[in-house]
Amino acid sequence: MTAAPADARTAGATAPIPVLAVVGVGLIGGSFAAALRRAGHVGRVLGVGRSGPSLERAREIGLIDEAVGAAEAAARADLIMLASPVGTFGAILADMRGALKPGAIVTDAGSTKAEVAQAARAALADRVACFVPGHPIAGAEKIGPDAADPDLYTGRNVVLTPLPENAAADVARVRAAWEACGARVLEMDTVEHDKVLASVSHMPHFLAAVYVAQVARSADSQQRLAIAGTGFRDFTRIAAGSAEMWRDIFLSNRAAMQAELTEVRAVLDEAERALDAGDGAALQSLLEQAALFRRDWKAGH
Amino acid sequence: MTAAPADARTAGATAPIPVLAVVGVGLIGGSFAAALRRAGHVGRVLGVGRSGPSLERAREIGLIDEAVGAAEAAARADLIMLASPVGTFGAILADMRGALKPGAIVTDAGSTKAEVAQAARAALADRVACFVPGHPIAGAEKIGPDAADPDLYTGRNVVLTPLPENAAADVARVRAAWEACGARVLEMDTVEHDKVLASVSHMPHFLAAVYVAQVARSADSQQRLAIAGTGFRDFTRIAAGSAEMWRDIFLSNRAAMQAELTEVRAVLDEAERALDAGDGAALQSLLEQAALFRRDWKAGH
Repeated sequence: MTAAPADARTAGATAPIPVLAVVGVGLIGGSFAAALRRAGHVGRVLGVGRSGPSLERAREIGLIDEAVGAAEAAARADLIMLASPVGTFGAILADMRGALKPGAIVTDAGSTKAEVAQAARAALADRVACFVPGHPIAGAEKIGPDAADPDLYTGRNVVLTPLPENAAADVARVRAAWEACGARVLEMDTVEHDKVLASVSHMPHFLAAVYVAQVARSADSQQRLAIAGTGFRDFTRIAAGSAEMWRDIFLSNRAAMQAELTEVRAVLDEAERALDAGDGAALQSLLEQAALFRRDWKAGH
Repeated sequence: MTAAPADARTAGATAPIPVLAVVGVGLIGGSFAAALRRAGHVGRVLGVGRSGPSLERAREIGLIDEAVGAAEAAARADLIMLASPVGTFGAILADMRGALKPGAIVTDAGSTKAEVAQAARAALADRVACFVPGHPIAGAEKIGPDAADPDLYTGRNVVLTPLPENAAADVARVRAAWEACGARVLEMDTVEHDKVLASVSHMPHFLAAVYVAQVARSADSQQRLAIAGTGFRDFTRIAAGSAEMWRDIFLSNRAAMQAELTEVRAVLDEAERALDAGDGAALQSLLEQAALFRRDWKAGH
């Protein structure tokens, strides 16, 4: 392996992360690389991916220095970021396991964490301690290397859900990388993460998609759209996201979604009963609870 | 009645609407007056309202020239805009009926139209032909005279739902006033209006409020809010609106809301069944339908 000397020759060899590898060089992975590079936090950046044109484009615009395979990335990188779809993590980690450089840390940007932790355990087995699960909470409507933006994570929340096996120093290194991107880092239990994310991220998408599908199927859908205003626009914005990505998120976080849906349906039943009964007081009380809660959140932001 | 000469002395006596009266001088009514005044479309502006301080503030900042009672507004105005809550229209129109100046037109800005038409018929009886129902589709999160903005209606849709009794010339005058505000004017059947609005305006608010109330009631609601991102922000923005106003809208448009809710629930059932069964293909198909429909709408905007 002659890679280490080549990496050491680069100007960034003294950066906190001499060699970064990013698997999936789109919005999430590309922005991570761009933000770390701008902060002087990385030396060399390796890109791994299934799409030749995406990797080539990422190299052209300077997101990565070179494209390599998963095993080579494992052998050369100090930090590996998995930013490909969650369903690909198991195979990638299995490819990397035997090649991982001593001291290397692997982290990820997957939207659900229980399933990711399970896949990492299965693929890495006795080396799972090197895997520090994470989740940057940042928009993902745009895709591809050209969408990468060094400011994507500025002021955003990143949740780390450390495994019991993780060394505190490794968690701290992942935290420091995200902080160098301008993000606010929180630590959370895996199950609590998935529950909270089901509620504030996955459920809005699920409901927005259900609602938009219902409008789309109506006989007068075009007339509806012709007079839809800003309320419709904002309420449905997330429904335009990638169907594949959200399908995977919902299935990956199914148990937490089912639990939340049960609770959402209970409140929907209550609101509909008040409407059916013409019970203005009950309706207003529910609307007021929502309005006050939402205004408080806005005020805190 | 010495009012007519006084109004005729004002500089705007040759404007298309020599005297405008606005009932409710908040965001909706105040913005209408401000836009028409800027366009040179009105001469004198009279304000009618239940709140002394709001009327005084509206006069101070030049939205209205003077505050008068409902009967005096009826006697002096060429166009009367009802921009108070829908539930107040019946009493106001009954107060105005005996005093209405010959040729005066009354219009409104209520969010539902079947109930408004019914209230107008009951209050105005054989004079109902002067009432041209309308609905500007513009945001209403801010309230009060200070929220009034001459640009509020620029590029927005205004739906008129003329009564069979309306003279075409009267409908044309209301249309011209909205066009002078920069709005795009559509005409629609009353029932179709209420159905379409239930779908693209009232339902998003209903669902957003139900969802936010469910989050608010959760034991870990503060932790949820701490990591809520831009998807949550946009999806729930409308839930911060006035509980009273939305209660009245839902009750006023109850039948159309119930019909839409039945359809939304059917799609929710379908999505939940796909989730329960782990049926990725069904889930993706539904998400794709929503995403394509939403992207098409955005592209058309």
